[in-house]
Amino acid sequence: MSETERALAYATGNRARFVGELQKFVRFSSVSARPEHARDSAECAEWLADHLRLIGLKRVAVVRTRGNPIVYAEWLHAPGRPTVIIYGHYDVQPVDPLDQWHSSPFSAQVRGSYLYGRGASDDKGQMFTHLKAVECCLRTAGILPVNVKCLFEGEEEIGSSNFAPFLVEHSSDLQADVVIASDGAMPNPHQPAITYAMRGALMMELEVTGQKSDLHDGVFGGMVHNPLKGLCDIVSRLQTKTGEIAIPGFYDRVSETGQEERTFMASNGPTGEQLMKDARTEALWGERGFTPYERTTIRPSLTISGITGGYQGTGPKSIIPAQAAAKMSFRLVPSQDPLEIEQFVRKHIAMLTPFTLQSKMTTHMTAKPIVVDRQHAFIKTAAAACEEGFGQAPLFIRSGGSIPALAAFQNVLNIPIAMIGFGLPGDRIHAPNERFHLPNLYNGIATSILFMEGMSQ
Amino acid sequence: MSETERALAYATGNRARFVGELQKFVRFSSVSARPEHARDSAECAEWLADHLRLIGLKRVAVVRTRGNPIVYAEWLHAPGRPTVIIYGHYDVQPVDPLDQWHSSPFSAQVRGSYLYGRGASDDKGQMFTHLKAVECCLRTAGILPVNVKCLFEGEEEIGSSNFAPFLVEHSSDLQADVVIASDGAMPNPHQPAITYAMRGALMMELEVTGQKSDLHDGVFGGMVHNPLKGLCDIVSRLQTKTGEIAIPGFYDRVSETGQEERTFMASNGPTGEQLMKDARTEALWGERGFTPYERTTIRPSLTISGITGGYQGTGPKSIIPAQAAAKMSFRLVPSQDPLEIEQFVRKHIAMLTPFTLQSKMTTHMTAKPIVVDRQHAFIKTAAAACEEGFGQAPLFIRSGGSIPALAAFQNVLNIPIAMIGFGLPGDRIHAPNERFHLPNLYNGIATSILFMEGMSQ
Repeated sequence: MSETERALAYATGNRARFVGELQKFVRFSSVSARPEHARDSAECAEWLADHLRLIGLKRVAVVRTRGNPIVYAEWLHAPGRPTVIIYGHYDVQPVDPLDQWHSSPFSAQVRGSYLYGRGASDDKGQMFTHLKAVECCLRTAGILPVNVKCLFEGEEEIGSSNFAPFLVEHSSDLQADVVIASDGAMPNPHQPAITYAMRGALMMELEVTGQKSDLHDGVFGGMVHNPLKGLCDIVSRLQTKTGEIAIPGFYDRVSETGQEERTFMASNGPTGEQLMKDARTEALWGERGFTPYERTTIRPSLTISGITGGYQGTGPKSIIPAQAAAKMSFRLVPSQDPLEIEQFVRKHIAMLTPFTLQSKMTTHMTAKPIVVDRQHAFIKTAAAACEEGFGQAPLFIRSGGSIPALAAFQNVLNIPIAMIGFGLPGDRIHAPNERFHLPNLYNGIATSILFMEGMSQ
Repeated sequence: MSETERALAYATGNRARFVGELQKFVRFSSVSARPEHARDSAECAEWLADHLRLIGLKRVAVVRTRGNPIVYAEWLHAPGRPTVIIYGHYDVQPVDPLDQWHSSPFSAQVRGSYLYGRGASDDKGQMFTHLKAVECCLRTAGILPVNVKCLFEGEEEIGSSNFAPFLVEHSSDLQADVVIASDGAMPNPHQPAITYAMRGALMMELEVTGQKSDLHDGVFGGMVHNPLKGLCDIVSRLQTKTGEIAIPGFYDRVSETGQEERTFMASNGPTGEQLMKDARTEALWGERGFTPYERTTIRPSLTISGITGGYQGTGPKSIIPAQAAAKMSFRLVPSQDPLEIEQFVRKHIAMLTPFTLQSKMTTHMTAKPIVVDRQHAFIKTAAAACEEGFGQAPLFIRSGGSIPALAAFQNVLNIPIAMIGFGLPGDRIHAPNERFHLPNLYNGIATSILFMEGMSQ
């Protein structure tokens, strides 16, 4: 029995315990968007650090930042072998709407072959595969096939604003040959996938204000410009009915994707039917001339993700509200620069604001788009590990999402990134009843063991 | 000393006690729009009934309805004299945004010459003038100059849907010569006013839905039609930038106001400068060809009074929300029919809804417009009472607001209505820090005593 076989056997023998440990991890309500959960995030980081020590990693540290801490750990006793950075995030999205959850979001219930809970898939369950792979190797062979540095952050869901500065500050200590990150999806439980591109992101908030306080709409309706209606007018004009973004300059740097790549995408990516099923929608929508897969990957998008203004309760209330706000999420593609787009948006919103109202823009986060060369040696190693771990060669897919931290690895440290997503399209990440498919945990652990083994060759 | 002089002297001598009683009345959180306050409303109605008994009214009854109770009381011992119905409402608007109140909305604090609290002006303070006038007469002369029937409802702020049916059911018992109602405003503390017209109202809610649940906007942004953006598009197209309502048929029955009436309005109503000051706005807005006063009285208006959709917390959240809702308040003018307009709105919203989304409309309330003949004898009596009570002849003004109950008096019982508003433009009704000017309480009581006296002649 080889060292790898013994590690894989250990993984199979300890599945029930691993699930129990993951449940403990999911039970921390480490919601980074909500300041009132800062303590939960800190406790989650401490638990994670303890767990890293327990499985045999060294120099474990909970590093303070201006926000939630970064958890670091390493094992560097494989001289001459490559160094792998394992990246993941222990923070999670907010849970609302809470009333649509079938079980409490932090109860981490196992029902059937799923573990339900906020963060179960994004990203606690997925990052856990690599921790358990490290444990399997250290508990059987006593050593790892490669050098490992773990970097787990607590602010991925709010833009990782403290992560890039951390990379810059510690760049000499963080040299490595490849980053492995599991914070994405595969098409179905039998079909693994390697993500070779992600969209960038720009998240902003528009606030529109008018008269000094709420007014009675009977008394003043007709002579005061309603900020809430003004906000609708602005928002409505940012985009055509089919989704094209109507902001001057926005498309200037959008790269045309060549026919070869589009053909590759068509044969490797999901079909429109599959995406509609995943989205649980019966109506297709979007830019003409592009498939649904293309619309969500090689084309930028704008989503109004929240609007608040005026009376929020049941029944009527006769007011002209004094202010209104809209949250906007732009997804960007190569070679768009989030900071340049931000200026275009600010300028256009100012232009759209009528003189009877005032508008203010706040930027919540930015992330550059990522593209990885599919022909890179490390990517081939990752592909071989996937094929053995899941019994099927991986598809190479693009993701429509954004991971600012991975963009930082590429930009600050110039390290290639192997993105192997263990989530499923039906995991309902960012939505009620998020869940993680437990067979993906098991096959993910095997894949990670095989990847480390492959990297050592 | 005449009976009237003795009643007026009693009023002056008991001011401090009256203010204390009004504070007790304001302390009930009788918010009709919120079901959780139903018990507070019921307790408020019981307190009011006890108070009516205490001041000497007869046959006091708290009448159950499908919603909040109606409080009835009478004094019918003036045979051969006219009968006056006193109308008012003891329910109040919701208090949000709560954090903008300088003192708790139901603490009923007196600061300077104002009583602060939700409902202090709209309508508890204003209706209280007539109760105290009745008390002043009964405590001094032992009788009233006229017959009186009191009708106080608890659902004015949510459309009085149970009030018109009550009037229909009890129409034979509710015969009277005039209704007096104080639920409006006068331009300043020294200038009384009689309202001779009110706008009608139609309050509806639009809900837009799309895919079955919230989705990650990175993964699906660009191929799913966002219901929140769809809602903005619909709302944006209901109205031009200057306020004209862009719904086919909407203006068909809007009466042209003649030049004579517009000239009368210009010399009796507030100036644009005054209205801008009252609204605490620096920018004028609205339909061309009409003054601000005209825009808010003889022209219809549409106000989006609330929008809810997607993420409502701080920071960003990467979702495409599954639903969004907007509350709309239409104000109508003669001869618009709320039920006909409702059909036009429903039809147009259906037309504006793209096939990729679904929309649903709910109607919260309707009220017909009211116009009273300024030359009516009872109106002249009211004007004389105002002149003596405030030391200044009243202005005759139009109100932009709507009181469905008063429309019902006109439509069901065919009784003329004397609307004498004791509120001030700066009372911030429906907004944080609502207040009532105490000198208006004192002069309002005197006016009510003088009105009853005048009616007996």
